[in-house]
Amino acid sequence: MKIEGLVTCPDTKARAGQIQTDHGPINMPVFMPVGTAGSVKSLSPVDLIETGSQIILGNTYHLLLRPGMDIMESAGGLHKFMSWSGPILTDSGGYQVFSLGQLNRITEEGVVFQSRLDGSKHKLSPEISMDIQRVLGSDIVMAFDECTSYPATVQQARSSMQLTHRWEQRSLDYFRSTQPIYGYEQQLFGIVQGSVYPDLRKESAKTLVDMEFDGYAIGGLSVGEPKDDMYAITDVVTDILPQNQPRYLMGVGKPEDLVEAVSLGVDMFDCVLPTRNARHGIMYTWDGPISVKAAREKDAHIPLDANCECYCCKNFSRAYLRHLFKANELLVYRLASIHNIHFYHELMAGMRQSILEGKFSAFKKDFFTRYNLKRAETNK
Amino acid sequence: MKIEGLVTCPDTKARAGQIQTDHGPINMPVFMPVGTAGSVKSLSPVDLIETGSQIILGNTYHLLLRPGMDIMESAGGLHKFMSWSGPILTDSGGYQVFSLGQLNRITEEGVVFQSRLDGSKHKLSPEISMDIQRVLGSDIVMAFDECTSYPATVQQARSSMQLTHRWEQRSLDYFRSTQPIYGYEQQLFGIVQGSVYPDLRKESAKTLVDMEFDGYAIGGLSVGEPKDDMYAITDVVTDILPQNQPRYLMGVGKPEDLVEAVSLGVDMFDCVLPTRNARHGIMYTWDGPISVKAAREKDAHIPLDANCECYCCKNFSRAYLRHLFKANELLVYRLASIHNIHFYHELMAGMRQSILEGKFSAFKKDFFTRYNLKRAETNK
Repeated sequence: MKIEGLVTCPDTKARAGQIQTDHGPINMPVFMPVGTAGSVKSLSPVDLIETGSQIILGNTYHLLLRPGMDIMESAGGLHKFMSWSGPILTDSGGYQVFSLGQLNRITEEGVVFQSRLDGSKHKLSPEISMDIQRVLGSDIVMAFDECTSYPATVQQARSSMQLTHRWEQRSLDYFRSTQPIYGYEQQLFGIVQGSVYPDLRKESAKTLVDMEFDGYAIGGLSVGEPKDDMYAITDVVTDILPQNQPRYLMGVGKPEDLVEAVSLGVDMFDCVLPTRNARHGIMYTWDGPISVKAAREKDAHIPLDANCECYCCKNFSRAYLRHLFKANELLVYRLASIHNIHFYHELMAGMRQSILEGKFSAFKKDFFTRYNLKRAETNK
Repeated sequence: MKIEGLVTCPDTKARAGQIQTDHGPINMPVFMPVGTAGSVKSLSPVDLIETGSQIILGNTYHLLLRPGMDIMESAGGLHKFMSWSGPILTDSGGYQVFSLGQLNRITEEGVVFQSRLDGSKHKLSPEISMDIQRVLGSDIVMAFDECTSYPATVQQARSSMQLTHRWEQRSLDYFRSTQPIYGYEQQLFGIVQGSVYPDLRKESAKTLVDMEFDGYAIGGLSVGEPKDDMYAITDVVTDILPQNQPRYLMGVGKPEDLVEAVSLGVDMFDCVLPTRNARHGIMYTWDGPISVKAAREKDAHIPLDANCECYCCKNFSRAYLRHLFKANELLVYRLASIHNIHFYHELMAGMRQSILEGKFSAFKKDFFTRYNLKRAETNK
């Protein structure tokens, strides 16, 4: 998977470009809303398109447990099931097994775990994960890895990384030996591990590049390590990954993280923060996040952001949103999610435009000058 | 408020026509979705328009308690607050005081009650209710009445009706002595009471007609009385109400109730059933209501209704809806509400069209032939 029209920033490692999928092109850098269980929480496909979403993420773990792969297959894959005609990226299921599942056993073969829903036993392995992602029919498939927990000693991190490399090679071999089910192409991304150890991360990046994946992800970050470690490791890894293939920093992050990581050469992101925060009334603005549930918004008959073009800001006031939150009205979760997802996409689009115009450094400086102003208000 | 273009059915008392408000015309017969607390649960104004909603209902009681009239006034009224540019009808608050409020005292003057939210004390009287509805800025204002509880003895019903008549006269006098706040006209409807007693209902209808309201509602039905009583009373009342003014049967009802009541000469309806049932997975079809959460829908990769033009049916399968319900995904409450509200509006539009074409009796017969087929499945 080659990046087309790659443009790089003269001062930083930021890049802009486009990748092609059989469900449409993706302008990068890009943020991918998370559709955990076959739905980006509270948003319809039309909402996603109107907020500027180009690609969404689906979670293999959740979809495997519910509705299950028999239903996903009879539906004709995840796109048809959820009526989303754009590109989809699915994770391998590994991360949720380790973070959410009741893990019974890890062996060289794979993992056995119990469903958090009904206690039923399930297996995941590189081959099973590839089979599942073939059934889901995602445009971008993630290799099956072990997300190294934090903190880990260097020995633990190395051992986990080596297992990940063997699993990723098996993912790749099996994936290349199978065919898409639904008549369109699927791409496979490898995942760099190695915890917070630069030498391990370099080794992991080189090993994966040698395997020749379609794209590369940086996994095992944003799992509790200091921010500086996250940025330093990202910096180390993007120095090694091929310039002309996409790079995806998994599970990141806050708006300021996206700006930092783009400047370090990352192209793709996913995170539940904008939708989760929206459901709690934490709304993103260019001056930083605010709580629209706060008493001071009681009679604020003004939009969250007077310059925002989202459906929420064009039609509804902070006072109305606050009222809906207080009254537990379902509408507000959607309106708030529309705004936050739109904000994330606007942030990415702003970065992209500034890179294309050779002005990314100025964009980044302006962003932090303004966003920092009120950041102390809330740290979401 | 005169009905324009009134067309009557040759066989039944069914009528079709149009009324004008400063927020647009309303084709009747019409169903009004209920926006209890400034939001038709889970639906945006665009959703309401796309499902065919012409007018929505707001609840004075709920809006008085939250967000409160200071915020409603600084917002510039309910239309602006909730960003709904079509007509709005508000109730008087009386019904909820009796059914939801902690009622402290009823006097000739009015009622005193405690908020179910914070225990604060509030007063409602004919004059206060009119003032509140002026602030809300509804296009159609309801007179302040006492909704006679069921069952009631004839003495209780008469006494309650007489109080209602005195309160309605005061509502009318006060309303006529005040002006709209926001520069557009408001209309006042009177409410016929009298429980299940035909003679009281006749007396009530005649008394209200003599007062000369802009339109007339039938209150105190669908409160536990037998269906036959509901229909018989409606029949008695519509015989007395003026032909050329709108008639509104409050809080009704199920699809079959709407068809029966239209045949008895009713023009307007409101009910929370389509949205409440939607949130519980009870979906309306022309074959009767079904539960989309049922196990048999697990891999039903077909829409709720293949001929339905709503956003839900055009894009999503029963299997997907069932999955979203099982996963408690917020999106489904909206999709299901879109379908049910759309179904109600299609039912009203079908009745209207058949009346205009002089074929209402056939429409009614066809409806019950088909709708009864599966009605036994669920009684929602």
